[in-house]
Amino acid sequence: MQLLFRSLKDTWVLVSAHRMKRPWAGQVEKPPEEHIPRYDPRNPLCPGNTRANGEVNSDYDSTFIFENDFPALQPDAPDPGSDQHPLFQSKAARGICKVMCFHPWSDVTLPLMKKHEVLKVIDKWAGLVEELGTKYPWVQIFENKGAMMGCSNPHPHCQVWASNFLPNEPALSDRCQRAYYKKHGEPLLLQYARQEAEKKERVVVENSDWLAVVPYWATWPYQTLLLPRRHVLRITDLTTGEREGLADIMKRLLTKYDNLFEISFPYSMGWHGAPTGTHLKEDNSHWHLHAHYYPPLLRSATVKKFMVGYEMLAQEQRDLTPEQAAEKLRNLPEEHYKTREN
Amino acid sequence: MQLLFRSLKDTWVLVSAHRMKRPWAGQVEKPPEEHIPRYDPRNPLCPGNTRANGEVNSDYDSTFIFENDFPALQPDAPDPGSDQHPLFQSKAARGICKVMCFHPWSDVTLPLMKKHEVLKVIDKWAGLVEELGTKYPWVQIFENKGAMMGCSNPHPHCQVWASNFLPNEPALSDRCQRAYYKKHGEPLLLQYARQEAEKKERVVVENSDWLAVVPYWATWPYQTLLLPRRHVLRITDLTTGEREGLADIMKRLLTKYDNLFEISFPYSMGWHGAPTGTHLKEDNSHWHLHAHYYPPLLRSATVKKFMVGYEMLAQEQRDLTPEQAAEKLRNLPEEHYKTREN
Ligand SMILES: O=P(O)(O)O[C@H]1O[C@H](CO)[C@@H](O)[C@H](O)[C@H]1O
Ligand SMILES: O=P(O)(O)O[C@H]1O[C@H](CO)[C@@H](O)[C@H](O)[C@H]1O
Repeated sequence: MQLLFRSLKDTWVLVSAHRMKRPWAGQVEKPPEEHIPRYDPRNPLCPGNTRANGEVNSDYDSTFIFENDFPALQPDAPDPGSDQHPLFQSKAARGICKVMCFHPWSDVTLPLMKKHEVLKVIDKWAGLVEELGTKYPWVQIFENKGAMMGCSNPHPHCQVWASNFLPNEPALSDRCQRAYYKKHGEPLLLQYARQEAEKKERVVVENSDWLAVVPYWATWPYQTLLLPRRHVLRITDLTTGEREGLADIMKRLLTKYDNLFEISFPYSMGWHGAPTGTHLKEDNSHWHLHAHYYPPLLRSATVKKFMVGYEMLAQEQRDLTPEQAAEKLRNLPEEHYKTREN
Repeated sequence: MQLLFRSLKDTWVLVSAHRMKRPWAGQVEKPPEEHIPRYDPRNPLCPGNTRANGEVNSDYDSTFIFENDFPALQPDAPDPGSDQHPLFQSKAARGICKVMCFHPWSDVTLPLMKKHEVLKVIDKWAGLVEELGTKYPWVQIFENKGAMMGCSNPHPHCQVWASNFLPNEPALSDRCQRAYYKKHGEPLLLQYARQEAEKKERVVVENSDWLAVVPYWATWPYQTLLLPRRHVLRITDLTTGEREGLADIMKRLLTKYDNLFEISFPYSMGWHGAPTGTHLKEDNSHWHLHAHYYPPLLRSATVKKFMVGYEMLAQEQRDLTPEQAAEKLRNLPEEHYKTREN
C-alpha cells in the first residue's frame, strides 16, 4: 500500500491494489441504455422541440447552445450584508449556465461522431470561453455522461457554467501550479506531460499534439488527464491543427472507454485552463490547459467504485494502480465496438 | 444564489435553492431492502458464521470486532525509494483495518437498537481509538450505511481504519481549526456549537450534552454535524454521562433520518477528533470532537443528489438551503416509523 502525491491538489491518494480481489456483493447499477431513439418528440434537447420554459429549439444540424432552464447561477443574485461572523460568511454567487448539444441526433456520442463533428464541438467550447470569459473569471465546461453520473437526458450534450468567482477546484489547482512554477521555473503540467511521454507506462493514447494518461495521482479507477504537448494556457489558444489533434485524441480515448466494458462509458469530464475575466490581463504562465475525465466504474459495466466513508471522511483510496488502469485502456482496440460488427 | 463559507475546509459551497423545482428525469435508485432476515447462514458478519478467510465468528451477543479480510491498510508496507521527482512522490501507507458489528441481529440498525446497546457501540469506539491510538496518528471510525453508499453487507456494522499518516481530510480540518484558534482564541467548533444553539435555525436535535445541526456549510442535502457542548478533544475523553447523551441523540437523529422518507436512511458517517499517536503529547486545544453524517438522498427514497461534473470539476453545489433541510428534519417525529404501527 502506498500514498501517491496529487500534485494538482497538494494531497495524497491511497492505493491498495490487491483490494480488487475482494468479492463484490454490493450494489450493481443498471447498465446504460443502449437503444436510444435518434429523435424523440418528448426530448427537450432534440431539434425543433419545445423546452420546459416554452422556448422552441431551432432545427439545428450541428451544435446547439441555449441557456439552462433551471440555472444554478444567475447574473443578478443580491449581495449579502457585510458585517459577518467569521463562521457564517456568505457571498453573492453570480453567473450564467448554458447547455450545448453536440449533435442533432440523440443516438450518438462523441466517440461515435465524425471527427469534423467533434471539431465543431471544440470550436464552440473555445467560442464560449472567449465570449463568457470577457466578463467572468471562470468558465467551467463539463459533461456529465450517463445516468450513473446524474445526467438526466441521453441526448449528447455538455454544460457551461460561468461564475463571478474562482470555484474551489480551480482555485486549488491555480495555487498548486503557481507554487510549482515559482519553485521549478516550469509549468507543472508541461513538465508532467514531458515526463509521462517519456515514461510511457501511464500513457493511454497520444498524437503529435496531445497526450492522454491515467495520471500518477488518479483517484477514480479509470480517470484520465488530457494534455496538449505545447504550452497552452486556454482552450481559446489552440491552433487549428491542435483542435484537429484534439478531435482525434478525444475520439480515440472515448472509443477505448466505450470498449472497456462494451457500453456507452459513463463519466464526468471538464476543462481547466487559466482563469479569464480580469485574470486575462495577468501573467498566467504557470497554467497549462487540460481536461479531467472522472469515470465511476471499477469492475464492470455495472459495478462502480464507491467513494464513501473512508474517502469522504479521511482520504481517497483506489483499488488498482494507475499503471494497471493505463495498460488496460492502452491495449483496447481503437475501433468502436458498435461499428466493429459492420 | 450564494456561496457559503466552509470553515472546516477553507472553501465555499454554492447554494441554488430553487434548483429543487426542476423536474427529475434522471436515475432512480432501488429503495433500500426492508426485509432482512435476522440471521442468514451465508452472511459472514452473523454470529457463529465462517468468514472469507476461514475464521469463525464468535457467538457474540453484543458488539463484535475483527480484522478486515480485505484490508486497504496493512502494518508492513515497504518503503519506496527516497530520491523522487517532485511530480512522482510516494510514501509507504501502513495501518490496520477493523470491522465492528453493532449487534448480533442483521435486521436492526442503530436507531432501532436499544439505548444501552448503542452505548456499547460508543464504548467500543472509544476503546478502539484508545487501543489503536497508542500507535497510529489517525484512527478513522466510519460507517457506510446502505447499498447506495457502497455497503455490501446489510448487517449493522462500521469500520475502523488506523493509519501511520494523517489523511487529507483530517489534515485540512486540523489546519482550519488551528488557524481559527490562533486568530480567535477559542476552538472553532466550540464557538460554532454555541452560536448554533442560540440561533436554533439549523438545529435538528439537542440534549444537555450534545447538538446535531445541518451545518452552515453542509454540502449534502441532509448532511448533519454532531457536536458535544463541552470542549472535548477525542471520543476517549467523553464522560459516562456524555456517552449516554450521545446514545440518546444518535438514536433520535437517526430515527428522524429514517422517518424522512420512511426507509432505512443511507449515509456515510465518521468521527473526527484530535489526532493520536505522537500527537497525544502535543497541545491539541484547537480540536473539538465531532461526527459528520453524509447522506446521499435529495428528493425521495430513490433520488440521490449527484455530486458530478460541476461539483467534481469546480465546486460543490446544493439545491436546498441548510435551514430548509434542518427544518424538515426537526419537524419529523422522534418515534421510528417501523415501531409506530405497534
Ligand atoms: O470495505 P467495503 O465496505 O467493502 O467498501 C466500501 O467502503 C470503502 C471505504 O470507504 C470504499 O473504499 C469502497 O469503495 C466501498 O465499497
Ligand atoms: O444540470 P443537471 O444535468 O440536471 O444536473 C446534474 O449536474 C449538476 C452539475 O454537476 C449537478 O449539480 C446535479 O446534481 C446533476 O444531476
